[in-house]
Amino acid sequence: MDEVPGSVGTSASFSLRLGQTIFSSASLLFMSLGVEFYSYTAFCYLVTIMGLVIPWSFTLALVDGYSVLVKCPLRQPGILLIIVLGDWVLSILTLAAASSTLGVVDVLLKSDASYYPIKFCSRYQISAAMAFLSWFLSFGSFLFNLWLLPTL
Amino acid sequence: MDEVPGSVGTSASFSLRLGQTIFSSASLLFMSLGVEFYSYTAFCYLVTIMGLVIPWSFTLALVDGYSVLVKCPLRQPGILLIIVLGDWVLSILTLAAASSTLGVVDVLLKSDASYYPIKFCSRYQISAAMAFLSWFLSFGSFLFNLWLLPTL
Repeated sequence: MDEVPGSVGTSASFSLRLGQTIFSSASLLFMSLGVEFYSYTAFCYLVTIMGLVIPWSFTLALVDGYSVLVKCPLRQPGILLIIVLGDWVLSILTLAAASSTLGVVDVLLKSDASYYPIKFCSRYQISAAMAFLSWFLSFGSFLFNLWLLPTL
Repeated sequence: MDEVPGSVGTSASFSLRLGQTIFSSASLLFMSLGVEFYSYTAFCYLVTIMGLVIPWSFTLALVDGYSVLVKCPLRQPGILLIIVLGDWVLSILTLAAASSTLGVVDVLLKSDASYYPIKFCSRYQISAAMAFLSWFLSFGSFLFNLWLLPTL
């Protein structure tokens, strides 16, 4: 069987999952170390989604690392289908969370600056950018695994 | 060749495209008949994206209607690939626009009500809901056409 680079059990997939874990953790940290993130629904939503993405990516990174070490790639259609569906749902949710966070930050920047400290806004922007990067990698994983799915 | 319901040139696809056109037009109208939509980036973004989705869906609705009338479905891989890519990009952009609009509306609702009239907020919410429905239908079209693509 042909090996699709980036699909489950390859070193490229391991890198993608590691990147997702790092970016979503960075997004969560930048958001939640600010004290007022729970005052807006969009920020709470981003924190919730990042809390889902981190364990998902980390678990799959462990699976990939194990597959690379024992040189036995995972090739079961059922498991692959679950991974594809999970990536798909999480990437949609991540995109929605990152967009709504950017929309909210834009409003906060235009509102009265004394009402809201401006230094928090740049942190929220960095958090949204990290979420976008995480979405991009997650979407890459989804496409590679979807490509592999019909060949099984 | 098997007919995939919902792919280009079927009556189901015609209904999907018609629904997209109606929902995105409704979203555009609810947003732009308010006078202050250009004061927030997220609202301008939603209007821009809806201005892209409406002609795209309307053109494809015409193509589908024509194909159904002459009973000759479109089966060229190149054109189908362009349609799949277009649906894909537009559905991502629509989702991002709808999410950021909802995030902004949430902030406006929590801000001082006298500063911003509350009746505009419900209009913006309806507009975002219409954009979500348009995204849902657009995503359906994308999936059906993607399913057809490898069989050509």
